[in-house]
Amino acid sequence: MEEVRVLEIKQSVFANNEAQANRLRQALKEKGIYLLNLMSSPGSGKTTTLTRVAERLRDSLRIGVMEADIDSDVDARAMAAAGVKTIQLHTGGMCHLDAAMTRQGLDGLEPDSLDLVVLENVGNLVCPAEFDTGAVKNAMILSVPEGHDKPLKYPLMFQVCDVVLINKIDVLAYFDFDMQACAEYIHMRNPNAQIFPISAKTGEGIEAFTDWLQTEIRQWKGESV
Amino acid sequence: MEEVRVLEIKQSVFANNEAQANRLRQALKEKGIYLLNLMSSPGSGKTTTLTRVAERLRDSLRIGVMEADIDSDVDARAMAAAGVKTIQLHTGGMCHLDAAMTRQGLDGLEPDSLDLVVLENVGNLVCPAEFDTGAVKNAMILSVPEGHDKPLKYPLMFQVCDVVLINKIDVLAYFDFDMQACAEYIHMRNPNAQIFPISAKTGEGIEAFTDWLQTEIRQWKGESV
Repeated sequence: MEEVRVLEIKQSVFANNEAQANRLRQALKEKGIYLLNLMSSPGSGKTTTLTRVAERLRDSLRIGVMEADIDSDVDARAMAAAGVKTIQLHTGGMCHLDAAMTRQGLDGLEPDSLDLVVLENVGNLVCPAEFDTGAVKNAMILSVPEGHDKPLKYPLMFQVCDVVLINKIDVLAYFDFDMQACAEYIHMRNPNAQIFPISAKTGEGIEAFTDWLQTEIRQWKGESV
Repeated sequence: MEEVRVLEIKQSVFANNEAQANRLRQALKEKGIYLLNLMSSPGSGKTTTLTRVAERLRDSLRIGVMEADIDSDVDARAMAAAGVKTIQLHTGGMCHLDAAMTRQGLDGLEPDSLDLVVLENVGNLVCPAEFDTGAVKNAMILSVPEGHDKPLKYPLMFQVCDVVLINKIDVLAYFDFDMQACAEYIHMRNPNAQIFPISAKTGEGIEAFTDWLQTEIRQWKGESV
């Protein structure tokens, strides 16, 4: 099991987050590193999903994960156990990461030998949506127990996400979750959003998402798809 | 069914939120109105729980609910259907309510004839915990699908809450949720926190919470318990 490093992130001093984000994205492009920003509510299954993704991709891609949390290192321990390069980012009380904070995390992770880095953002459907982290794409997980009305209540989160993973479909039978209505609400916010129903617990649906991710990474690196 | 009013909340201009909160609490005390601040992650069941609470208490108490959301009025419609006085607060993009914003909501609700007002805060385990709203007590809902480790990851939320409702116990069998570990983690953050396991769906456990709430309200109004 790899060691878990904990990095205390400092509040950002840059006024222009957009410029910082574009600069970071450019630097990642030059190095051929694909950064995915993964957001969700607390407890929707980000870490379990990433563990499944790592299982499928770790033989073909070099993967790193940055686990942002206000406190604790339980997620970083889980990811390290899954055999990926991991760093735990402590945000103090902060509710989101911006581009400069993401760069601090990347500097700590030392990603130069990596193909894919996932930023597991703070569990929050509001604030993280407001800040471009410098990631190539934004993804979010909505879990079945949260309900299909979330795109109505948290519009910006669904607007900025290129991918929505609908997790915990293994418990669909026990909740009043309308998958079709949910897809409609998501596309109301972002008509281009890709939707992948998954169960991180059973592994169902993960392959469709990792197929999408592998194509994305190849395109980002300029390889023929 | 009562009509749903929607109020657009303006960003607060007061630097000293603590003083505003204490002033609001004092005004509520003088009028004998008990304000409960209810917080949680998105989709943990705040509205369904409040519907159950209203069913049990509406014959003995005059109840009002302020539904804070970034957008939509689905929660306010649900509460109005449950027969309580309701106002929908739109926060724009804001991730929390402070005391001055809560006061705007109360002014819109016109609570003078009410015994209990519940503020359903924005679904978010981070930012709402940082702001005293002027409520008499803070309560939060943690739902079983979110996992028992949340008090480790969102320390301030559990520290500031007097009451933790553990919701969706009807699906305990389908999730790896350790109730005893969860209670230990909660008490690590706040040794005085009252914990009520409930199912808003089936109604299980709601009575213990409403009993607690009725005692609280009597004490606040200076009635003999």
